Amino acid sequence: MLEQWEHEDVVMRRGRRSGVAMVVATHSRALGPAVGGCRLWRYPDWRAGLADALRLSKAMTVKCAVAGLPFGGGKSVVALPPDTELTPLLRQAVLEDLGEIIGDLDGGYLPGPDVGTGPEDMLVLARHARKVFCKPESHGGTGSSSGPTAVGVLAALRAGARDVFGTASVAGRRVTVSGLGAVGGRIAAALAAGGAELTVSDVDIRKRAEATAAGWAWVEPDEALRVPADILVPAAVGGVFGEGTVEDVTAALVVGPANNQLTDDSVAGLLAGRGIVWVPDFVASAGGVVYTLSREFDGLDHDAATRRVEGIGDTVTTLLASARASGDTPLHEAMALARRRIAA
Amino acid sequence: MLEQWEHEDVVMRRGRRSGVAMVVATHSRALGPAVGGCRLWRYPDWRAGLADALRLSKAMTVKCAVAGLPFGGGKSVVALPPDTELTPLLRQAVLEDLGEIIGDLDGGYLPGPDVGTGPEDMLVLARHARKVFCKPESHGGTGSSSGPTAVGVLAALRAGARDVFGTASVAGRRVTVSGLGAVGGRIAAALAAGGAELTVSDVDIRKRAEATAAGWAWVEPDEALRVPADILVPAAVGGVFGEGTVEDVTAALVVGPANNQLTDDSVAGLLAGRGIVWVPDFVASAGGVVYTLSREFDGLDHDAATRRVEGIGDTVTTLLASARASGDTPLHEAMALARRRIAA
Repeated sequence: MLEQWEHEDVVMRRGRRSGVAMVVATHSRALGPAVGGCRLWRYPDWRAGLADALRLSKAMTVKCAVAGLPFGGGKSVVALPPDTELTPLLRQAVLEDLGEIIGDLDGGYLPGPDVGTGPEDMLVLARHARKVFCKPESHGGTGSSSGPTAVGVLAALRAGARDVFGTASVAGRRVTVSGLGAVGGRIAAALAAGGAELTVSDVDIRKRAEATAAGWAWVEPDEALRVPADILVPAAVGGVFGEGTVEDVTAALVVGPANNQLTDDSVAGLLAGRGIVWVPDFVASAGGVVYTLSREFDGLDHDAATRRVEGIGDTVTTLLASARASGDTPLHEAMALARRRIAA
Repeated sequence: MLEQWEHEDVVMRRGRRSGVAMVVATHSRALGPAVGGCRLWRYPDWRAGLADALRLSKAMTVKCAVAGLPFGGGKSVVALPPDTELTPLLRQAVLEDLGEIIGDLDGGYLPGPDVGTGPEDMLVLARHARKVFCKPESHGGTGSSSGPTAVGVLAALRAGARDVFGTASVAGRRVTVSGLGAVGGRIAAALAAGGAELTVSDVDIRKRAEATAAGWAWVEPDEALRVPADILVPAAVGGVFGEGTVEDVTAALVVGPANNQLTDDSVAGLLAGRGIVWVPDFVASAGGVVYTLSREFDGLDHDAATRRVEGIGDTVTTLLASARASGDTPLHEAMALARRRIAA
């Protein structure tokens, strides 16, 4: 199949301080300036970094549109060569280089943290860029968005549970949380507090002691899909569900913050075909961007911004109801909603 | 092998008027602003257009450096989808879109015509871009650079002939010219006037009558390498010499304006191994850019600019002498010269 170019604007540069290849991709500004994180990661070559930037910026367009935000989708990727040692000096250099590109875009792309970067790094970008999101709270930003992301996933999960099980309560429900990072860890703790029977996993074996101490069952990551569960929360790497793994899923509801949970879009149909309700990842994980933009752009306070994040539950309820009515997948309904909003 | 990113700056956009994907690639500005043509062509997908822009802009860096020009290498590519009908309206739209990108680069990339564009198109780019080359003479430009390109190839050919045959004269020499376009046609006519025994070919069968009328032998394009000759002038498409075709070459000297004559750089060694002197294409074809920049940037008159173009002969003499001395290929010597100048 021919792959059509659909991005509004992509800039690739060799950083003049760092010599490292970097990409700023703007997929769409149809709804407003492009927002999206800055990923600092090792790639086998620049093509892989470019591909990631194109894919992730498009996902941000859809995420913002479905969340009802007046913003477009962008992403920046610093493609470190394999085996690069990221010294503090090199980190500084790549961030200055990236900041310069973002500055040249003159407010058309507004960065925030992503894999490999954090609130402190935003201070470096801010020297060049007109506006950056998620600076440390000590510098007037809202810091890490892991908390709001977890709040959004929990809202999506409750809405999904109401749809699938007839009740939003997780009390007594078997829930598997795969990935105990900043977001997954918060989700697990909240579900445990809500009375769920938790099974957890993580690639970091050191998390096992914590989990066991909390009374949670532990499985290895490659067992997480298979272990009997009512609800599965993917909170680790992407590409979880593909042709070879869909049949392993025991849960009736799958909802979590992991990016790119499907190896490709057709997998949504495979999941639906097995009677599994899958809440699209970009819907469930929108809490971070909703919270940050509500605080830093609209000037809402913490409580008001959090209420907006909890609105993700209503979005999920609507999507699942229309999927049920149309016979299409929730993914199909979410994409249709995004397209309607972008075309409007 | 890992492919390292070495371009200073690449911008890809979907044109906002045309919807067509386009790329402006700047390989290097180490020696000065990037110059390079604007290619308007059909590509199977945007990746092919990007690949072309990356490859061609790098070739321009080397071409300028070897020619001793204080300019870097760039290239713009408008990647029309396959089967696009290029209506006058669409042509106008893509040129306006491309001009806008070039304008945003603020003089960092200076365009000229290339495959698919001509002097008239430069007038559209000039509405947005600070400086464009090769506008029509009626608008103060120097128009098509085919004439100077042919002059440069002939200077390179004479220098090569002196090196290989001991005399620059082509009188009585069997010369094959493959490709009778604007440049190849001029070269053929000049060689015939100099007393060469010409064999010519072209994919356009209508050229045959002209050639025959002029008393030149005609062969089909795929026979052009094979027909007995002292000198071969590739003046058609690139990728002429590869592992399967080097053994067909009968000429002792190969020099012509076709771009990318080798399927890859290692083929230079295969040619040298068979005792064939190959003048690198980017050296032989530099007449157009040398003339245009001398006229339009340095303000030289026609005669002075033409003398500079003829200086390509001295460059070839030097390269062939150092190749003979070092035992390396002329390509190796030319690349080394380019690197020295860029690093200086």
